Amino acid sequence: MATASGFESATRVRDLGDGRYAGEIHEGWDIGGNANGGYLLAMVGRALCEATGRPDPVTITGHFLSPGKPGPVAISTSIVRAGRRFTTATATMAADEQPLLTVLGISGDVSPVESMEWSDRQPPELPDPKVCVPMQTGDALAPPFRDKVELRFHPDDAGFLRGEGGTGRAELRGWFRLPHGEPVDTFGLLCAVDAFPPTIFNADLPMGWTPTVELTVHVRARPAPGWLACRFGTHFVSNGFLEEEAEAWDATGRLVAQSRQLALVPRA
Amino acid sequence: MATASGFESATRVRDLGDGRYAGEIHEGWDIGGNANGGYLLAMVGRALCEATGRPDPVTITGHFLSPGKPGPVAISTSIVRAGRRFTTATATMAADEQPLLTVLGISGDVSPVESMEWSDRQPPELPDPKVCVPMQTGDALAPPFRDKVELRFHPDDAGFLRGEGGTGRAELRGWFRLPHGEPVDTFGLLCAVDAFPPTIFNADLPMGWTPTVELTVHVRARPAPGWLACRFGTHFVSNGFLEEEAEAWDATGRLVAQSRQLALVPRA
Repeated sequence: MATASGFESATRVRDLGDGRYAGEIHEGWDIGGNANGGYLLAMVGRALCEATGRPDPVTITGHFLSPGKPGPVAISTSIVRAGRRFTTATATMAADEQPLLTVLGISGDVSPVESMEWSDRQPPELPDPKVCVPMQTGDALAPPFRDKVELRFHPDDAGFLRGEGGTGRAELRGWFRLPHGEPVDTFGLLCAVDAFPPTIFNADLPMGWTPTVELTVHVRARPAPGWLACRFGTHFVSNGFLEEEAEAWDATGRLVAQSRQLALVPRA
Repeated sequence: MATASGFESATRVRDLGDGRYAGEIHEGWDIGGNANGGYLLAMVGRALCEATGRPDPVTITGHFLSPGKPGPVAISTSIVRAGRRFTTATATMAADEQPLLTVLGISGDVSPVESMEWSDRQPPELPDPKVCVPMQTGDALAPPFRDKVELRFHPDDAGFLRGEGGTGRAELRGWFRLPHGEPVDTFGLLCAVDAFPPTIFNADLPMGWTPTVELTVHVRARPAPGWLACRFGTHFVSNGFLEEEAEAWDATGRLVAQSRQLALVPRA
């Protein structure tokens, strides 16, 4: 059940008319004082879906312009085209007239449909969440929003958390859910795909947070209740940039979200 | 050298002031009468870079709204934020007031910089272009714009072209260049990542063109002269959607572009 301090409450928006919405960046969703990008994207995604009258973000691209700090934000939306199945819209979140995040997205309905089904990928093989590794208060790398979402890392990928070195692979596998039994809806997926520490922490590269420039999420289905199995990976660190991909699978083994972000390489 | 019928000419835009540009969808860049998405994205990318005064599209996301037909188009751009290194802007291409493509992108300069460099991927192993397989006029699947770009498929991946069946893998490897020695610039990369036939043609799935809903391209570097080695792949066909990824590498073995698109599954 969602609590007052939960994700739904922390991403809620209030309709002000004319496509404008009011929201609030809640305390505790930050990394080093700056609100998590996926959390902000979820809030803008809600405004975009409310403005377009469709239930789910189908694909959404966010460009991160300035760090978000706790406090009120204004979201202005603009519909580009309302089609039969999808509505395309833009939205910008601002605080004190300063744009924080601008978005281009499509809303629609990702309820199950009859479809050709094919894949050459499986969910990551993860031990039971009980034997996976949580973030802990003592961890140098634990982002402060660790009590807002529950993460459990594959034990093989979690050495870097305790200063034991990485795996040499820029990959991080683990579980994601919201605390207190709050279900993860399609907006929660926008948060999930940006909730893990940078994958390069595992590649024995110089560490540092990797500021997100752009994040695109494809929401492929509504998740079933329960933990999401997630795989994060990076393949190319070059010319000042890196990309990070995420896949999230629900408890029935279905792919529910896929994302890629472009981020800045930390300065050596 | 670029010719009057070349890519540069076919994607040129004319500044009308106030962030508005005029362009023209040229004949011959279509698939079944509809202009190729990457070609349209390149034209809008040019307008976006001219409007922001920066040389390269760094990341660009296009949403395809209506099919583009040969003839004049109007592109309106709007700057969201001009920063120190990047400018974020939106742009919409329309024909007869009908929006065809709307874009959110960042322009900047992708000249080589000192950077941490790391990768766990290599360019695809491709035989010399001379022994790879071109599209031919007789191919049922040859898009009409085959004479606008030069494609050479890995022989192992090209059986589907001649009705010999696919490989069972939703992957397609091959070379890309522009004809008549026209160099591929960072706008040409936006075309390259959408220029190959759908990867699912190789996965022994029911065939059909896969209309692109959304395409995001990360331009990671300016390409050196010569052929681009490209790898296209799809991992998930589900719930009415599929994604298609592309990587393009230049003749020096450097990754120059990475893309992912969300497309509609063809109706069975």
